[in-house]
Amino acid sequence: MDIFSPGSRLAVIGAGTIGASWAALFLAKGYEVCVFDPAPGSEALVRAAVEGAWPVLQRIANAPATPPWQRLTFAPTAAQAVAGAVFVQENGPENPALKAPLLAEIDAALPEGRIIASSTSGLTLDILRNGLARPDRILVGHPFNPPHLIPLVEVVGDEKTNPAAIERAMEFYRSIGKEPIRLTRSVTGHIANRLQAAVWREALYLVQEGVASARDVDAAMAYGPGLRWGIMGPTTTFHLGGGAGGIAAFVEKLGVAMQSWWDDLGDVTLTPELVKTLVEEMAQLPDIAALKAERDRRIVAMLEAAKE
Amino acid sequence: MDIFSPGSRLAVIGAGTIGASWAALFLAKGYEVCVFDPAPGSEALVRAAVEGAWPVLQRIANAPATPPWQRLTFAPTAAQAVAGAVFVQENGPENPALKAPLLAEIDAALPEGRIIASSTSGLTLDILRNGLARPDRILVGHPFNPPHLIPLVEVVGDEKTNPAAIERAMEFYRSIGKEPIRLTRSVTGHIANRLQAAVWREALYLVQEGVASARDVDAAMAYGPGLRWGIMGPTTTFHLGGGAGGIAAFVEKLGVAMQSWWDDLGDVTLTPELVKTLVEEMAQLPDIAALKAERDRRIVAMLEAAKE
Repeated sequence: MDIFSPGSRLAVIGAGTIGASWAALFLAKGYEVCVFDPAPGSEALVRAAVEGAWPVLQRIANAPATPPWQRLTFAPTAAQAVAGAVFVQENGPENPALKAPLLAEIDAALPEGRIIASSTSGLTLDILRNGLARPDRILVGHPFNPPHLIPLVEVVGDEKTNPAAIERAMEFYRSIGKEPIRLTRSVTGHIANRLQAAVWREALYLVQEGVASARDVDAAMAYGPGLRWGIMGPTTTFHLGGGAGGIAAFVEKLGVAMQSWWDDLGDVTLTPELVKTLVEEMAQLPDIAALKAERDRRIVAMLEAAKE
Repeated sequence: MDIFSPGSRLAVIGAGTIGASWAALFLAKGYEVCVFDPAPGSEALVRAAVEGAWPVLQRIANAPATPPWQRLTFAPTAAQAVAGAVFVQENGPENPALKAPLLAEIDAALPEGRIIASSTSGLTLDILRNGLARPDRILVGHPFNPPHLIPLVEVVGDEKTNPAAIERAMEFYRSIGKEPIRLTRSVTGHIANRLQAAVWREALYLVQEGVASARDVDAAMAYGPGLRWGIMGPTTTFHLGGGAGGIAAFVEKLGVAMQSWWDDLGDVTLTPELVKTLVEEMAQLPDIAALKAERDRRIVAMLEAAKE
């Protein structure tokens, strides 16, 4: 099942929320995990995150009853963490001035033929590989938060990336139960954040125009189109919407209406007034921790239903 | 539970896919349903649709073991169908030239104090009420297909609509397990179709730009943000994304990135070339009927998980 040998070591560099969640998943899947994070107290935070993630990992990733702590180690430097690693998942700060020396240190210490995947959501491949001795082995492996729960990983590699490294990263992510998606080049926001941005822009436009409250727009999504979007994306949804004729019939029937909706979509800015409205509406919701627990419970149920 | 008396009669005018699905739900919820549709063979089609919808209605709407056929009747004219009705759900053709005389006939035959809800997805309130003797009692009750399964109903009423009619329609839809959302005025595409249009525009833009295939963009949604969108809409999602600080903290942390994504979102036209690409990609998917059955099975699972 795993593409590396049993017990292969993976390095997790930078262990905030994202890095710690990756570490939990890698442990659940049987790997040795060596973590480096310079922040004081990070070791305790990682252990707590692994414990927090474990019940979900038992349900969706066949994790053993308790975390295999003996397979989790911490290194005092990035170089030491990656020295024996077959694959590096880097989750450092989204600041090129901090990321560049970190990646250079990783690249220098990592043996030939091993891959560096960056969890970056905002930096392009050109920025990531700038200054590396082996620039063709770094790629983006951008997870969707939290990585141990949400299957999506956006894998970005372009014509300067070693195709074998891209294929191997895709294969690795698939082997641990992820759903890696291949992007042919860096675009701002990858795919998922752009789709989120597109939908939120229109949602906020409707709020701004007074058509409905933010909570009602949210409900319209969650009780309507959102019910299908965790099952299939928009093109497949419309393919089914076309009946036996599929997407061609859909475009034939609704292409003109679609264009009229596109033409009428709005634009917004996060003005202080708009943010104030959102804050006031969200303040009426139940406690954030309770909402989060409920959301994650239902995501697990969805992932289980998908497997049936 | 029902806002009308037990056994009250509802009229379903126009019984294509949408009307027949409404009829099935109304029957499941204990109402008498009188259907009018001038198309030849419509009675048999409605009965087949009710039978098709019934297994789902048993799971999500407490429907009895078999459809109560004695409560389903068919009238030879719209006027006769609505004569004894407490509420009319109109699902006629989306053509004002055909809709106007139909609505006028309904309005003339429907007793005082009763409501006409139109399932229209494309016509504005001004068009719908034009020429009615009692224009303040018509509103939009736009379902999301199929109405017996998807909870969302977009209720549109404006300053010319009787507020009591709007409130009563909202209450009625809630009483039969729907999630009615209130729009203060007609906008093209209501809310749900606008959100769908926004997300599809960006999805197609990424395909057009060669960043990823349509199937991969779909997968990025379904395995990523889409998993949350059937549980909560975008503002609530980002409210949780802000941690303990909620939406204010989210905007503080990611407002600049969001603006950069908004600025970079693209635009598309459904050119023959783009449609051809989509058709070719969708042709690689399993059979449409199988995909639909799987989708509906998983939507039912989501609705059940939401109730737990």
